[in-house]
Amino acid sequence: MPERLISIAHGGGGTRMRELLRETVFPLLGEDVLLDAEDAAVLALPGDRIALTTDSFVVKPLFFPGGDIGKLAVCGTVNDLAMVGARPLYLTMGLILEEGLSFSVLEKVVSSVADWAENTQVRIVAGDTKVVERGMADGMYINTSGVGVLEEGREVSIKGASPGDALIVNGYVGDHGIAVLSEREGFSFQAELLSDCAPLYGLVQSMLEAGEVHSLRDPTRGGLAAALNEMASASGCAFEVVEGDVPVREGVRAVCEMLGLDPLYVANEGKFLAAVGESDAGKVLAEIKGHALGENAMLIGRATEGRKGQVSLLTPLGTRRLLRTPSGEQLPRIC
Amino acid sequence: MPERLISIAHGGGGTRMRELLRETVFPLLGEDVLLDAEDAAVLALPGDRIALTTDSFVVKPLFFPGGDIGKLAVCGTVNDLAMVGARPLYLTMGLILEEGLSFSVLEKVVSSVADWAENTQVRIVAGDTKVVERGMADGMYINTSGVGVLEEGREVSIKGASPGDALIVNGYVGDHGIAVLSEREGFSFQAELLSDCAPLYGLVQSMLEAGEVHSLRDPTRGGLAAALNEMASASGCAFEVVEGDVPVREGVRAVCEMLGLDPLYVANEGKFLAAVGESDAGKVLAEIKGHALGENAMLIGRATEGRKGQVSLLTPLGTRRLLRTPSGEQLPRIC
Repeated sequence: MPERLISIAHGGGGTRMRELLRETVFPLLGEDVLLDAEDAAVLALPGDRIALTTDSFVVKPLFFPGGDIGKLAVCGTVNDLAMVGARPLYLTMGLILEEGLSFSVLEKVVSSVADWAENTQVRIVAGDTKVVERGMADGMYINTSGVGVLEEGREVSIKGASPGDALIVNGYVGDHGIAVLSEREGFSFQAELLSDCAPLYGLVQSMLEAGEVHSLRDPTRGGLAAALNEMASASGCAFEVVEGDVPVREGVRAVCEMLGLDPLYVANEGKFLAAVGESDAGKVLAEIKGHALGENAMLIGRATEGRKGQVSLLTPLGTRRLLRTPSGEQLPRIC
Repeated sequence: MPERLISIAHGGGGTRMRELLRETVFPLLGEDVLLDAEDAAVLALPGDRIALTTDSFVVKPLFFPGGDIGKLAVCGTVNDLAMVGARPLYLTMGLILEEGLSFSVLEKVVSSVADWAENTQVRIVAGDTKVVERGMADGMYINTSGVGVLEEGREVSIKGASPGDALIVNGYVGDHGIAVLSEREGFSFQAELLSDCAPLYGLVQSMLEAGEVHSLRDPTRGGLAAALNEMASASGCAFEVVEGDVPVREGVRAVCEMLGLDPLYVANEGKFLAAVGESDAGKVLAEIKGHALGENAMLIGRATEGRKGQVSLLTPLGTRRLLRTPSGEQLPRIC
């Protein structure tokens, strides 16, 4: 049987598009509200403060060890909501498909979206599908936007770190970027490197209940270095990080050395940087380490009253160097 | 001075991206919440029912008579919220930029987004910027997602039409599709045809206060024919439309005849199809006609108890024909 392919007509707003949605996309997502086909979904909202975020995903290739663009599109947006302490409720999904994309690829990606939406207890409540000509979207791009709800009194902000706060990461850094790069370039290693792509709200919720979490950031593009600089700069603190305490997997370190990359600048998709109140650091770290997504968590440094926004790294040689914000991206198209 | 161009580094999550956002994008949008650079925006929400929608815009070319991709990205999403009776409050903006796009084009588009956000009193509260390699995004694509709030008791639904309802459009159909096509193909006409791209919430709000509006749909892709079929099908009514009463501009009719297009299948971006309770039809139509975006409104037909979902057209020759849902799209990439 010849493979079914996406054509321009599938983006035309007529019966071909309706077939694509009703026979392929909606059954996988299993959301009644999509079948209603309203121009906008009408939804109940508990609480009077929402969090709202958006992310477009252009990762290349679409499938990589440990994930795919669909998993990334759910986890990335759920994590952005979690980083302000919001419980993720609703996602939208905007597909830009390239003419000639195979139905089987689309089905795999949408299934992955559905699986991870279920896993994270968010609902995909609104969508949009556009088709562009061959060569114009590298297979497919996905935008997800997310709405979450904030419990009363919950205040987690990129500005929230205070001098004395402990800086914690929930595990190995750099896995996602290196996994995607390896797949794209066809590298093969003895041990397969997997993306860390994962939804963080469950873990974040436990932490918020365990102690004073002042600030959270997921170190995606620009890696941990960008997240540290953004958090230090927004809070007005200086950060001191012990380089040797930043967990980096051996395989990731080896690839980075080979390619001249710094793992602190490589993207993650299942990690956070947290600034935690000094007196609660122990119990929050213990809580994180008790969670499957935090087993390898480490306290990597402290916020201090030093020069505003400056991030310094204490190297294994006992020297100190500034860890700067990256300028561009070492690895494009990793999310 | 050489023209500044977007490079891959502008999508990298580092200082180049921050410069692009802080020096070019944010000042145009003038939104303090974007400067906060949280992973998600935290927002007050009046009311406990929200409307949520998403749309990606891939229009080609980016600028056309009467609008541009930025205006379209605001109006399209605001209109989707308006179609369920929701007051638009917040938009997100996801940019996918192609390497080599000129800063001046980006600035024009973002300025247009800002102007139309101001015009429609919505705030752009969250954003995302990705850069893909040359040739991979035809200049730029934009996703906007929107959150609106629903007043208590407001129930406007694609399912809402009842037998007896008057079917009303707020003006000439087909202008948008033909304006975009003409620009793309380099057609020139004696009188310039302008896109009807416009934000409809103001008009919708007046209508909802004037009488019983049961159902609204904006006839974008697939044109009025798709909207009529979707509304008839969702409501379970049959629709009877008087072809001669559907307002079509002379210039649009001429281009359509020349190219073998049917104006009823051509996209609009500032129109709605409304099903209005029989007894309120007169005053609602008068209200619409008093509004700048409704001067040329027409009552074009009725919902009946005939065969579910069937749309029939009474032609000027006195014959009756079925108006079917289009299969694909006569004109790709018009939104």
